[in-house]
Amino acid sequence: MTLTRDDVRTWDATDPLRSFRDQFVLPQGVIYLDGNSLGPLPRATAVRLKDVVDGEWGTGLIRSWNDADWIGAPQRVGAKIARLIGAAADEVVVADSTSVNIYKLLAAALAARPGRRVILTQAGDFPTDTYMAQGLAVLASDVDVRSVTGDICAAMDESVAAVLLSHVHYKTAARHDMVAMTSAVRAAGALVVWDLSHSAGAVEVDLTASGVDLAVGCGYKFLNGGPGAPAFLFVARHLQACLNSPLSGWMGHAAPFAFEGDYRPAAGIDRFLCGTPPILSLAALEVGVDLALAVDMALVAEKSARLWELFASQIQGRCGDMGFTLISPSEASRRGSHIAFAHRSAYPIIQALIARGVIGDYRDPDILRFGLTPLYLRYQDVVGAVEILREVVETEAWRAFPTEAGGRVT
Amino acid sequence: MTLTRDDVRTWDATDPLRSFRDQFVLPQGVIYLDGNSLGPLPRATAVRLKDVVDGEWGTGLIRSWNDADWIGAPQRVGAKIARLIGAAADEVVVADSTSVNIYKLLAAALAARPGRRVILTQAGDFPTDTYMAQGLAVLASDVDVRSVTGDICAAMDESVAAVLLSHVHYKTAARHDMVAMTSAVRAAGALVVWDLSHSAGAVEVDLTASGVDLAVGCGYKFLNGGPGAPAFLFVARHLQACLNSPLSGWMGHAAPFAFEGDYRPAAGIDRFLCGTPPILSLAALEVGVDLALAVDMALVAEKSARLWELFASQIQGRCGDMGFTLISPSEASRRGSHIAFAHRSAYPIIQALIARGVIGDYRDPDILRFGLTPLYLRYQDVVGAVEILREVVETEAWRAFPTEAGGRVT
Repeated sequence: MTLTRDDVRTWDATDPLRSFRDQFVLPQGVIYLDGNSLGPLPRATAVRLKDVVDGEWGTGLIRSWNDADWIGAPQRVGAKIARLIGAAADEVVVADSTSVNIYKLLAAALAARPGRRVILTQAGDFPTDTYMAQGLAVLASDVDVRSVTGDICAAMDESVAAVLLSHVHYKTAARHDMVAMTSAVRAAGALVVWDLSHSAGAVEVDLTASGVDLAVGCGYKFLNGGPGAPAFLFVARHLQACLNSPLSGWMGHAAPFAFEGDYRPAAGIDRFLCGTPPILSLAALEVGVDLALAVDMALVAEKSARLWELFASQIQGRCGDMGFTLISPSEASRRGSHIAFAHRSAYPIIQALIARGVIGDYRDPDILRFGLTPLYLRYQDVVGAVEILREVVETEAWRAFPTEAGGRVT
Repeated sequence: MTLTRDDVRTWDATDPLRSFRDQFVLPQGVIYLDGNSLGPLPRATAVRLKDVVDGEWGTGLIRSWNDADWIGAPQRVGAKIARLIGAAADEVVVADSTSVNIYKLLAAALAARPGRRVILTQAGDFPTDTYMAQGLAVLASDVDVRSVTGDICAAMDESVAAVLLSHVHYKTAARHDMVAMTSAVRAAGALVVWDLSHSAGAVEVDLTASGVDLAVGCGYKFLNGGPGAPAFLFVARHLQACLNSPLSGWMGHAAPFAFEGDYRPAAGIDRFLCGTPPILSLAALEVGVDLALAVDMALVAEKSARLWELFASQIQGRCGDMGFTLISPSEASRRGSHIAFAHRSAYPIIQALIARGVIGDYRDPDILRFGLTPLYLRYQDVVGAVEILREVVETEAWRAFPTEAGGRVT
């Protein structure tokens, strides 16, 4: 049975999330399939930032640390993110970057498992994860970082303190079974640090039900927090009193404004704060998180699966003989909210698509990646994007573009 | 000879920096003496942020990493800050918070001095400095942090790798002799990490001429970068190739978008980057730095000294019997751009001042601190502020305010 344009229009017209598209700025002529890399601008963000800049900073000045509760923003926005990922309000805080938060939690996990000095990372996961572990091992020179190709569980032994895993893979979108993996690693005496960068706001995540101990995540992808938005971290309540941050800055002190001579960690999750938070970026993140909280995540997951299946079937039907190899899992529960294909000319094809307003991205060495974000994408966008992709390959329009990124951001 | 109102008006009318005041948003009825804690909003910031939000993020979307050079912002703004502090363009980068940058440079300094495992900090300096060193010593368990009361040089021995010093003291405004101290510490075989938070943009700093090796600083005080603006760090060129960051994130990798399996530091200062930078906060910082670059720092230093002397003499003349004890150095070259007094009722007095629009701040246990920022303060503001201070004490208006901060931000 062939899908008609009318069918797709009907899907869009009856989409229970259709009203959310208007909450975002989406430029004319653009089909934005890169919300997994940088979410688009929520309309409310510009308004909120104007308030923060003109009102809170311009007029309130230093008083806004109290009067506008800037000081409470890391916890307030953390508590909101907690609701998106099945955590308690006092288990999540916004701070620093994902990389820095990985460092904090890996160091904390090592301290929580005395005698165990190995960190496992998964080869092929987003590389900053392994890089941060490697930096930690330079300072704590008895720590050994092992990047595991293949089955993590097979690499577990009694020397392993921590395992760092991406919940959803940044290239393939493959999603771990969080419950099974957390439980297996814990049974072997270690702690998993989950990186939720490609899953928070994208798929249903329930850290409490999954028995998760530690997690970090990114604010600028599916949370639509803006370029370089601050990241978040999660520490399960039962671990908070016995874990400390190696980045023991004043904002994580029990009494930051008492200016005591020695570090004394704050109670609870606050101890994982470090320096003064970037309030403008944090205010933008809060708007994105508020939007995500207005949606039923089950509806998001359902639409994500449907967008994905439509994208996959359109590629198969219209570009089936063009050299695209699907590298994302076909089972909805085993993947995130993007779809990826390998193609020998991936880089120039993505450039040709971008030039035509279809914004996906390229990942080394040969991957085209398309974010399928239910809050603002329509089914007709998927059909339109694949139509343009077909045309780019059919007409060889991509040959007009450079074959390599040459140091540019991809 | 008594100073008249006309004298002060003449000073303002002939002030070579007088035109800069209009570049800032300064609320009616406020005398802002807290630019050493949070600089006020430059008028250009709101305009620039609207461009970044609506244009670069809203319309440019992910493309702005290349097209708006977001990816180059840490280096671009770093190069501008370099001009303010007497460094070369490729010696400064904007990244993370001051606390996090202290951690990076202390770890790097330790690695550069093998066999030496002691970090000295100055007791009474801004506490996050010592806290960060203490966190480092937990991870690198053979490292010893000593907080020195009194003369740092007397505490030097062949075990000391690094000395962390505030150039200008956050409470008293006392300024170190940077040349002498850097040279003395280096002669003893160690490296100074200078914290420029209270001096960059406030006093003349020439890191190259002073022979400085390592420094960090804050973006939200005298650089007027906005609440929680990203911080900066400086590594002298001759040290860049042999120092590494312990926070070895992907933005500090030699090829971030090659997604290699192992960390390989970028050449030069770039290796001190870590995660994705908060672009909105970074854009606001750039506006503040641009403003500072439009001014001759010698004129700033000269006006700072004059504002300070006026403040001190007004206090002496009008509040001489009210219990204020000056705790800042009287010699201009030995201090920064704020003035501080001890008073037994410091906290409620500051609250009473703030309620009357004179915004200074309190520092534990009994200090009133007033920032004297030449870009937007007038001599008449100093006279007006002291007049209100006199009235607050004379009428005992401060008795209506709480005597303790009780956890609020001060």
